[in-house]
Amino acid sequence: MASKAVTIENLNPNIIKLEYAVRGPLVIRAGEIEKELEKGAKKPFKTVIKANIGDAHAMGQTPITFIRQVIACVTYPDLIKNSNFPADVKQRAKDILKACGGGSVGSYSMSQGIELVRRHVAEYIEKRDGHPARWQDICLSTGASTAIKNVLQMLCNKIDGKPSGVMIPIPQYPLYSASLAEYGLEQVRYYLDEERDWGLDVAELTRALKQADKTCKVRALVVINPGNPTGQVLTRANIEAIVKFAHENGLLLLADEVYQKNVYAPGSEFFSFKKVMREMGEPYSSELELASFMSVSKGYVGESGLRGGWMELVNLQPEVQAQLYKCISAMLCPTTLGQTAVDCVAKEPAQGEESYEVWSREKAAVLASLAERATMIAETFNSMQGFKCNVVQGAMYAFPRIELPEKAIAAAKAEGKAPDVFYAFRLLEETGICIVPGSGFGQRPGTYHFRTTILPQPALLRHMLDSFKTFHQNFTKQYS
Amino acid sequence: MASKAVTIENLNPNIIKLEYAVRGPLVIRAGEIEKELEKGAKKPFKTVIKANIGDAHAMGQTPITFIRQVIACVTYPDLIKNSNFPADVKQRAKDILKACGGGSVGSYSMSQGIELVRRHVAEYIEKRDGHPARWQDICLSTGASTAIKNVLQMLCNKIDGKPSGVMIPIPQYPLYSASLAEYGLEQVRYYLDEERDWGLDVAELTRALKQADKTCKVRALVVINPGNPTGQVLTRANIEAIVKFAHENGLLLLADEVYQKNVYAPGSEFFSFKKVMREMGEPYSSELELASFMSVSKGYVGESGLRGGWMELVNLQPEVQAQLYKCISAMLCPTTLGQTAVDCVAKEPAQGEESYEVWSREKAAVLASLAERATMIAETFNSMQGFKCNVVQGAMYAFPRIELPEKAIAAAKAEGKAPDVFYAFRLLEETGICIVPGSGFGQRPGTYHFRTTILPQPALLRHMLDSFKTFHQNFTKQYS
Repeated sequence: MASKAVTIENLNPNIIKLEYAVRGPLVIRAGEIEKELEKGAKKPFKTVIKANIGDAHAMGQTPITFIRQVIACVTYPDLIKNSNFPADVKQRAKDILKACGGGSVGSYSMSQGIELVRRHVAEYIEKRDGHPARWQDICLSTGASTAIKNVLQMLCNKIDGKPSGVMIPIPQYPLYSASLAEYGLEQVRYYLDEERDWGLDVAELTRALKQADKTCKVRALVVINPGNPTGQVLTRANIEAIVKFAHENGLLLLADEVYQKNVYAPGSEFFSFKKVMREMGEPYSSELELASFMSVSKGYVGESGLRGGWMELVNLQPEVQAQLYKCISAMLCPTTLGQTAVDCVAKEPAQGEESYEVWSREKAAVLASLAERATMIAETFNSMQGFKCNVVQGAMYAFPRIELPEKAIAAAKAEGKAPDVFYAFRLLEETGICIVPGSGFGQRPGTYHFRTTILPQPALLRHMLDSFKTFHQNFTKQYS
Repeated sequence: MASKAVTIENLNPNIIKLEYAVRGPLVIRAGEIEKELEKGAKKPFKTVIKANIGDAHAMGQTPITFIRQVIACVTYPDLIKNSNFPADVKQRAKDILKACGGGSVGSYSMSQGIELVRRHVAEYIEKRDGHPARWQDICLSTGASTAIKNVLQMLCNKIDGKPSGVMIPIPQYPLYSASLAEYGLEQVRYYLDEERDWGLDVAELTRALKQADKTCKVRALVVINPGNPTGQVLTRANIEAIVKFAHENGLLLLADEVYQKNVYAPGSEFFSFKKVMREMGEPYSSELELASFMSVSKGYVGESGLRGGWMELVNLQPEVQAQLYKCISAMLCPTTLGQTAVDCVAKEPAQGEESYEVWSREKAAVLASLAERATMIAETFNSMQGFKCNVVQGAMYAFPRIELPEKAIAAAKAEGKAPDVFYAFRLLEETGICIVPGSGFGQRPGTYHFRTTILPQPALLRHMLDSFKTFHQNFTKQYS
């Protein structure tokens, strides 16, 4: 056999380095198990519960009617004339179509997105923050991930012979570690404080920055708020301290705010970085460079499959922003139907409009149910021996810490697996529950965690937590 | 003012290098002119004609009903129950929803796409080529561009200290030059032969390869067939020669076949690289590594805004393919509604099904009209003094060669513009016609071309060609 043009040996090594645990080997195995079950295999469980990924609809959350009706109308405009959809749905669809080339969502939009939608996003941000937003600074994207990668890519060159570094929280959402690996950027890891509800300590940021300074040029800071996988919601004071830190150290701030609508805990409130820096006044207000990210995949909407998102760019050098927009243009445009979903999220039906009541009811129901499940999951985990779980203040995940018996750790090592990966595989094979081991997000050495979503519907979640409990008891007994 | 974290000076220089002429400065100016016209500015024309980009719906092509009905149904499943859509539309929507997590297009799919859709694509390829295709080798994407970039990214490392090189045709579609710049890959330029209908000469491939060998390690060969911007359709003999060349030189072949449904000229026929290499037998059939790309943005469908596409991977080392799939997984999944469009393109309504007649009629009408316009445009250009235009055998573009008077070339240089860019700006300002200068695609030094789409509807195209003619006469007169 002739040698291959592309082999593991000559493949771009960054691709080999890249790991994305949310869809890693455990999830691949979960898919295999599903196929085995379909073919009639006998297992101690009937279905796989995919608690590995923030995929709300897959776990039974129902779509928001208004969004789906608007998308149906822009896709098949006959429905504007001939359906009994609400008047505001039809009007919205007409507005969007008018903003599309040739009046069709089949046309490319501008690379930054349809101007009308960008204007609606700017209005949403103004209303959210009480401060102006420019539509020219809004750039729509195919889900938040694309926009995050586009911003990171601006940094992937060496400075004075040193690679660029990007500060990321530990634990973090693995899109960051994956993208840094892909782009040859250095991970500069700062630890969130588990003891203080996964809070962010500026002293720890300083430590991480100083330490990294020897091996790389630190250029950006990523903050995820509300937190993924941690579920924390940063306090305003905490955000102020972060803004100061980023400004003092000349860092570009990447604010991953895709869970801004997912806040549950009494006393917790979402403050955008943009709002806080504007209210801190100068020099922060007009100097700190910020990119903030949002998505329609999360919130009460959960339209992950539609791939809609946006970023707001604040205080970027205009020439740099133009370069970023140029870079994006080669990819043509984000999907117009994802942009339509963005429009509906940015500009919700207003009081008095025909869809308002159904929309409000649906939105409130999803958020109330998520809040209930956030409480249920943390309480149940905390009732289990060897588990410690912080309050899920926001987002869609719990990230409990677990104690693993020494013998289990030894057994894992014998199999060449990280102990938390070993545990997660056992859980999957014995209960069908698919979670993501803490090592996929990062954790302090010697500690073990996992991330589970709070997304299974209440009855299924109850069932999941029950079988989790039984599994953990058996596992602990086996290895003690 | 404090210095910025990200400046033009410390920005990733590959981003600065990257150019994408299809959406470059000329197109930005066209957008400004549109806004000026809206505000009532007086110009020698009433509208801007965007002949710069293959955006069929923006130029008045109507969507294929079947596709839009299926997307409307998967988006708003009530329509499956309560609309009078055809039975096959409803059945298709049900099948797709069944294949989605939680029965909702709001769920993430597998990163390579919904299995059902991948299977339909494999069946489409089998039918097209008369040779088997494995659904596991089909990877859906957010338009073809994403898939192309993912494959190129596998190569962006140095080999024995040399950067990797990728052979691209000149003229080429600028996604390639843009992506190579972005990834730090070397452009290895081979010229298409304008005198022989933009044919591809293996001697020229050999020349380019040998010459590049000194500065880089050539690892891949890009072929665009039918050609963009050239409109040529490669003969089977030509494809065979390319297959041999790629195999002999151990190159990964990237076959950009997004215009496979757009073939107009009598005697021209589309042969996929996959079909030809399979029929050439060993060693090509089981050794040549191939990635072939397809899109729903082109063909008779023109659903550019939906961002649906796929690639087929052939003979890749399984470990390499697994790495590529892993890399893609961090981006979660292509849009499910784009995937739905892919499904409709891959599995067209069959004879006897309720939608078949309308579908056939719509498809035939679009393709017949495109064929008519392909002829009209080449004939008109060839009737103009100083123009020479090859037959538009396929795709959606003409790429005529133009003679520019010496004085015009001097005037362009005085403005610091390439002569063809100067010409295109003048055309835009005086007629509202937006084309892309040849330098955006590459051309032999000393020759000048431009790319125009054949997409304006017949009456508008007639008007466009008439004002083009008048402009060119005046321009030539002015500078002679």
